[in-house]
Amino acid sequence: MKVGIAGYGSTKFSTDDIPLESILLESTIELFNNIQNLDQNDIDVVLVSTNNDSKYLGPILSELVGIKPQISHTVESLCNSGTNAIVSAYSYLASGLARTALVVGADRFDSPGQILRWDNSRGEFKHPIFWASIFAKSYKRKYNVSSQDLAYISVKNHKFAQENPYAYSKKQYSVEDVLESKELTDDIRLLDCSRPCTGGSAVLLSNNDTINKFTDTPVWLTGIGQKNTSASFTKNPSFVSMESTRIASENAFQIASTSPNKVDVAEIHDAFSVCEPLALESLGFIEKGRGTEFSKQLLETNDRRINPRGGIIGSGHPLGATGISQTIEIAEQLQGKAKKRQVDHPRIGLVHNMSAAATSSTVLLFQN
Amino acid sequence: MKVGIAGYGSTKFSTDDIPLESILLESTIELFNNIQNLDQNDIDVVLVSTNNDSKYLGPILSELVGIKPQISHTVESLCNSGTNAIVSAYSYLASGLARTALVVGADRFDSPGQILRWDNSRGEFKHPIFWASIFAKSYKRKYNVSSQDLAYISVKNHKFAQENPYAYSKKQYSVEDVLESKELTDDIRLLDCSRPCTGGSAVLLSNNDTINKFTDTPVWLTGIGQKNTSASFTKNPSFVSMESTRIASENAFQIASTSPNKVDVAEIHDAFSVCEPLALESLGFIEKGRGTEFSKQLLETNDRRINPRGGIIGSGHPLGATGISQTIEIAEQLQGKAKKRQVDHPRIGLVHNMSAAATSSTVLLFQN
Repeated sequence: MKVGIAGYGSTKFSTDDIPLESILLESTIELFNNIQNLDQNDIDVVLVSTNNDSKYLGPILSELVGIKPQISHTVESLCNSGTNAIVSAYSYLASGLARTALVVGADRFDSPGQILRWDNSRGEFKHPIFWASIFAKSYKRKYNVSSQDLAYISVKNHKFAQENPYAYSKKQYSVEDVLESKELTDDIRLLDCSRPCTGGSAVLLSNNDTINKFTDTPVWLTGIGQKNTSASFTKNPSFVSMESTRIASENAFQIASTSPNKVDVAEIHDAFSVCEPLALESLGFIEKGRGTEFSKQLLETNDRRINPRGGIIGSGHPLGATGISQTIEIAEQLQGKAKKRQVDHPRIGLVHNMSAAATSSTVLLFQN
Repeated sequence: MKVGIAGYGSTKFSTDDIPLESILLESTIELFNNIQNLDQNDIDVVLVSTNNDSKYLGPILSELVGIKPQISHTVESLCNSGTNAIVSAYSYLASGLARTALVVGADRFDSPGQILRWDNSRGEFKHPIFWASIFAKSYKRKYNVSSQDLAYISVKNHKFAQENPYAYSKKQYSVEDVLESKELTDDIRLLDCSRPCTGGSAVLLSNNDTINKFTDTPVWLTGIGQKNTSASFTKNPSFVSMESTRIASENAFQIASTSPNKVDVAEIHDAFSVCEPLALESLGFIEKGRGTEFSKQLLETNDRRINPRGGIIGSGHPLGATGISQTIEIAEQLQGKAKKRQVDHPRIGLVHNMSAAATSSTVLLFQN
């Protein structure tokens, strides 16, 4: 049984003070607007991906939209809740329990998923800027990388976000802007950071028997890799690579019978600028220590292969929606519908979505 | 690919003020104690079922236990979170993504899942006693059932719980005790209610290629049915039956190619005494209006076919753990390990787990 993307919808990302249920609803309405022939009765599974504390959101969204699904619940795993929900939906379809699954992610600017209070291994330094800072300092030292080198990633992703109609950031920045932005720690400036925001994204997955009702250009989920190495930041096996990403990507490439050099377009979880080179290297796209150089080159050649919609830094980071937004971007790219963001005839796309200082990662491979 | 129960573990149910992580850990340690040959590396998936607001509990539990799973997240759907997580685990195994999944449910006595604040269709009457009261009044009127008839269910389930070493309730009650217990609404007395409590339950699911490493007496999950009809109580299609339960059970029986009269032992979601007859009738065990009579007869003959561990009324209701505890009871019954609770040579067992005034239901069928 093959599983593919049958359609999608999104809200704009903002700092608006909107109830979570309304964000879920708005992105789902956009999905229904985008998919001809989609009827409420077609949907067997409704999964909500969020870090919001509200309960029973799957049934609530279902009632709001007029769906009476078989299966409905909330999936939470901090910042990669979205891809956890997509993989769960895949399983429901691939196991034969269901034909079509709606996965909707949403969070608010004030999401409680931003800080992992349980992790006492971070001492009082529980805000993500502190783990990002340790990654940045370690990476800079190990590979002789400068703050300026890292700043190019922020410049690139803010620039690419200008062509993303849903992006939180509306501005372009220079390397100087990044380096002169507010100093949060020794190694992290404000413009090195993705911003929590209010936003939602919805994707419809369907099996190969059913998908043609909804789309003529399905995008197939051909590789799945997930790995969780710990919950505590300090139990990370390395601070100069993402081990959970490395393991997840090896599994995904194996399942899809392909390799990093075959990937034409990728969404990378750049929660902070240092995360982009770390992920690029752990995914096998580029050798160790050369990630910033690679991203700088993409900026200079206006090559949108990596984070075409502006990454999380440019697009904003509504936690539970992020993995789904990344997936939608890859789908649009593989369908040739990404407009000014379009990469030249991509065949294979990758989504990299992680949680809590890369203690968990998901890697998904898609093919048109 | 067949999926079965490879082992399980539980905490006692109490009103103890224990951190959620500790409850998850304790039930998982019990599971490891109960399963010879189980190594941390055997576990591909860790799902946590809870209504607790804490985030990232799958990876947290995994780290505490020393597991580095591929897939790990939290599943929430109020009171049937537990069976939602079991069905999700089933899908991961049946789809071939994983071989073995650990599902751990836990909640505290003060769980935020007890009241669905979103549901404004309940007006100010958001506590579950109010929907239970409307069910009770409707059922009593429609079928000429008395408060005394309903009280027998509470008597039976408190009695059966005496042989359940994990049960919250340690006392036996008479019909008079129930009728004279605190009046909460016109139709609900305190002893008609299950009690929120602190507790955890863990179950290991495995595919047929792997399960023999862990157990010589696997219990197979042979039928799955789930249905969600709404989130709002007042959108329930009926107040004298559980429509989501009826639909879910029809699907489960169809998948398992069996029928209600073949079921030898069942765990029924008796959140309130009126829920037992409503569920028995909606599951097809007995004709409409005759559920209380049926339960009374079981009490009089000491027949443990329905809710052998004392149901939720007798055992207590740690929301995220409940569906898993029910599943463990059915597994013990089908393995002939239920000691004084043992039903005579059961072959087919059923779990009925529901949420939010039966707006969602799960029905699972098991076979030895």
